[in-house]
Amino acid sequence: MINNTQVGKQSVTFGTPTYIIEESSIAGKKEGEGPLGGYFDEVEEDEMCGGNTWEEAESRLQSRAISRLLKKAKLEPTDIRYLLGGDLLGQLIATSFGIETFEIPLFGLYGACSTMGESMSLGSMLIAGGYADKVIAITSSHFASAEKQFRFPLGYGNQRPLAASWTVTGSGAVVLSKEKSDKKKGANVCVTGVTTGRIVDYGIKDSMNMGACMAPAAADLIYNHLKDFNRRTDFYDKIITGDLGYVGQEILIDILQEKGYNIEENHMDCGIEIFDTDNQDTHAGGSGCGCSAITLTSFILHKMRKEEWKKVLFVPTGALLSTVSFNEGNTVPSIAHGVVLEVM
Amino acid sequence: MINNTQVGKQSVTFGTPTYIIEESSIAGKKEGEGPLGGYFDEVEEDEMCGGNTWEEAESRLQSRAISRLLKKAKLEPTDIRYLLGGDLLGQLIATSFGIETFEIPLFGLYGACSTMGESMSLGSMLIAGGYADKVIAITSSHFASAEKQFRFPLGYGNQRPLAASWTVTGSGAVVLSKEKSDKKKGANVCVTGVTTGRIVDYGIKDSMNMGACMAPAAADLIYNHLKDFNRRTDFYDKIITGDLGYVGQEILIDILQEKGYNIEENHMDCGIEIFDTDNQDTHAGGSGCGCSAITLTSFILHKMRKEEWKKVLFVPTGALLSTVSFNEGNTVPSIAHGVVLEVM
Repeated sequence: MINNTQVGKQSVTFGTPTYIIEESSIAGKKEGEGPLGGYFDEVEEDEMCGGNTWEEAESRLQSRAISRLLKKAKLEPTDIRYLLGGDLLGQLIATSFGIETFEIPLFGLYGACSTMGESMSLGSMLIAGGYADKVIAITSSHFASAEKQFRFPLGYGNQRPLAASWTVTGSGAVVLSKEKSDKKKGANVCVTGVTTGRIVDYGIKDSMNMGACMAPAAADLIYNHLKDFNRRTDFYDKIITGDLGYVGQEILIDILQEKGYNIEENHMDCGIEIFDTDNQDTHAGGSGCGCSAITLTSFILHKMRKEEWKKVLFVPTGALLSTVSFNEGNTVPSIAHGVVLEVM
Repeated sequence: MINNTQVGKQSVTFGTPTYIIEESSIAGKKEGEGPLGGYFDEVEEDEMCGGNTWEEAESRLQSRAISRLLKKAKLEPTDIRYLLGGDLLGQLIATSFGIETFEIPLFGLYGACSTMGESMSLGSMLIAGGYADKVIAITSSHFASAEKQFRFPLGYGNQRPLAASWTVTGSGAVVLSKEKSDKKKGANVCVTGVTTGRIVDYGIKDSMNMGACMAPAAADLIYNHLKDFNRRTDFYDKIITGDLGYVGQEILIDILQEKGYNIEENHMDCGIEIFDTDNQDTHAGGSGCGCSAITLTSFILHKMRKEEWKKVLFVPTGALLSTVSFNEGNTVPSIAHGVVLEVM
């Protein structure tokens, strides 16, 4: 019997938790040289991944993340009922071209850099709703395809402001399952609830300071999550945002402090963890859909499978801009999606 | 008790059906002058919708579709648990800027012109899964924002090949609900099942012939739907595709004929219905996310509420290309999403 419950305004819990039975992470060279380098399944030294274009490179990251995931989980594509995924590129071409050969029914998602939160939310909801036994949630980003899409041609060698972040090259994927796996070493990690974000727009227009744009959305999500579940911040071992970076982290902590929640002790941001900013010239930190995705599927799940962390609120954050909206003088509205991860 | 059932490879049915308790349709001037003109809630004469850019115009279509929908349904934004929506523009800016003031938790979706099928599929799944009592599914397209995004500057006055379609200006939205409405006149229309599409790529590279690109995806979806449910084509009063147009329709009928299914009698395509191609110079037919969305929320639901049609398979179709992938010489992979609509 399925017994899912609506909690407060924006959250749900599941009658039976959804298991993350396997995860995979493919990272770029720079990410491999960073502090989390040892945790990734694979570090790709070739920035083109053997392809001809940046977009093809990113598609290949997704394709390889799925291949490796299926291999690790000892599953075939036909074992997967749905694939939920997306990326930053216009019309999600990294995903469409990356996953098409697997022939898995697809829900294409766009949540900018919050996509891993969105795909895991909907994926868990589909499983706990009785629609699937196993689904894959995936996303990716690539430094060069993102720079080409959103900023300046790489050949310009333009100077980056200190508030700018560095788009992570990488793809992370998980298999979500109704049943636990007997193959997996370490603790079982489950999705036990989700909080779905709404668009938050503080009117900021600086696309070179996405941490500042996204921090209010992260704060809104975390605040409403804690209210919905009537939880204190110390319920979680870690509250982990996607890619706020140093600038956004400070704003997030300040906003939540004003609302009566202190997350200074247990906050972590994937964008801060993934690079050694002093030595890697990444300024405010890492960003992109791949940032939170490969941090989750390497470092975070490693910590949870070892039971060093037992309860994590995972909150990927996304800035909903395009070059068109930016050039037309629009703000950068943002969104965040929260996923409750628990060792069970 | 929730009792959703996985059916075959790609389909599900719901323990309790999801009601479409209200719908709204905002159309552009040209669409208003077409054969379905009398069915739309509103025809906007100003192609800018009072805004300053094509993208803002499209955002305003979505905003007005939701405002009108809520007014017709006598609901407040806070009555809606989730909004599921998307559009054709890079990073879904028509949706993000169109819906942000409603402050409803959002799942951003991208399925190209299949988006209405994707949003209604996931929306119904969320309701039947116990996660929401009411959700809104919405999408839009705008002729000028799409031409700017995908083709030539309008000022060029370039000649359109006969296989090209005309992007519909319009936004359609529905309220999906767990409970039927006592306010609605006419028959209750429900979503009783969905079939989720996978990417189908026949290697076609002509972005000016999207009907040919999408027809194989529509055929794959309809074929697998009929197999999954073990249904004959005459189970449905109508099998309605999104925007195949005249070229795509012929291919669709041919492919299904080869697979042993004859849908010639009961097939309808929104792209063919929405314009009077002889007098409106729209060549192969209408296209865009808005095409199937406003045809559904005006003409199709009108026919169903009058019980002229009692069973409809609604299959919006999407071509997953971007200008980047096209210019890099890639194919146009496609997808379709199937939604079973029944009078109950």
